[in-house]
Amino acid sequence: MKNLLIIAHGSRREQSNTEIRALAEQVAANLPLHVDDVSVAFLEFSSPTIHDVINSSLTKGTQELIVLPYFLSAGNHVVKDIPHELDQVIENWPGRKITILPHIGGSQEMVKLITSTLIELQGS
Amino acid sequence: MKNLLIIAHGSRREQSNTEIRALAEQVAANLPLHVDDVSVAFLEFSSPTIHDVINSSLTKGTQELIVLPYFLSAGNHVVKDIPHELDQVIENWPGRKITILPHIGGSQEMVKLITSTLIELQGS
Repeated sequence: MKNLLIIAHGSRREQSNTEIRALAEQVAANLPLHVDDVSVAFLEFSSPTIHDVINSSLTKGTQELIVLPYFLSAGNHVVKDIPHELDQVIENWPGRKITILPHIGGSQEMVKLITSTLIELQGS
Repeated sequence: MKNLLIIAHGSRREQSNTEIRALAEQVAANLPLHVDDVSVAFLEFSSPTIHDVINSSLTKGTQELIVLPYFLSAGNHVVKDIPHELDQVIENWPGRKITILPHIGGSQEMVKLITSTLIELQGS
C-alpha cells in the first residue's frame, strides 16, 4: 500500500485547517493509480501531528509513504523542522519506503498557476 | 499602469525569501499582456514591507494594483493581517484601483498541481 502524506503548517484559525483537509479530499478523489490514500498532518496549531499520522499509516500496513511538504518556500519549517520530525519517526520503521517530495512552492508549475490566475482575472 | 503585488509570508531563512523573489521574476517573464510589472512584499521577517511596496508603486504612477496573497490557506495572515495592512495604506490613495485576489491555495488548479507532481514521480 502506498500513501500520500500532505504536511501543512497548520493555523490557529480552524477554517484554514479545514481548507487543507478539503484539499486533501479533492486530491484523494483525483489520485493517480499508484497512490492508495491521502493523509494530512500539521506541523503546528492543529492535529494530527506528523508522528501520529505516520505511525498510524505504517501500522495499518502502508509500505511506501510519499510526503509532500505543503509549503510555498523552503524556510526553516521545510529545511529543518519537517526533516527533523520525519527522521525521528522514520527510524522506528526500518524497511518502509519514505519518499520526501520537494515543497509544493518549488514546483515548476507554480508560475503557470499564478499567470493563469491573472489571465482568468482579465477575462472576468 | 497595472502591477501585480505578490505578498508572501517571509522567512528568517533568507534563501526562502530569495526563492519568492525568483518566482516573481519568472512570473514577470511570463506576464499576461495586461499586467506591466511584478513586485514582492513580505508580511514578516524580510523586506520590503507591504506599505513600502504599495506606496512606491503608486508613487511611480501605478493606476491599478492586483494583490496576490501568496499563502496556501486562509489563516489569520490572509483574513486579518494582510487586509489590515492593505486598508491602512490604501486609504491614502483614493482613486487608485486595488484588486485583492484569493490566496493562491484557494485556486482550483492546486489539486491538479499536486496530482501532476505525483504522476511525475510515478514516471521517474
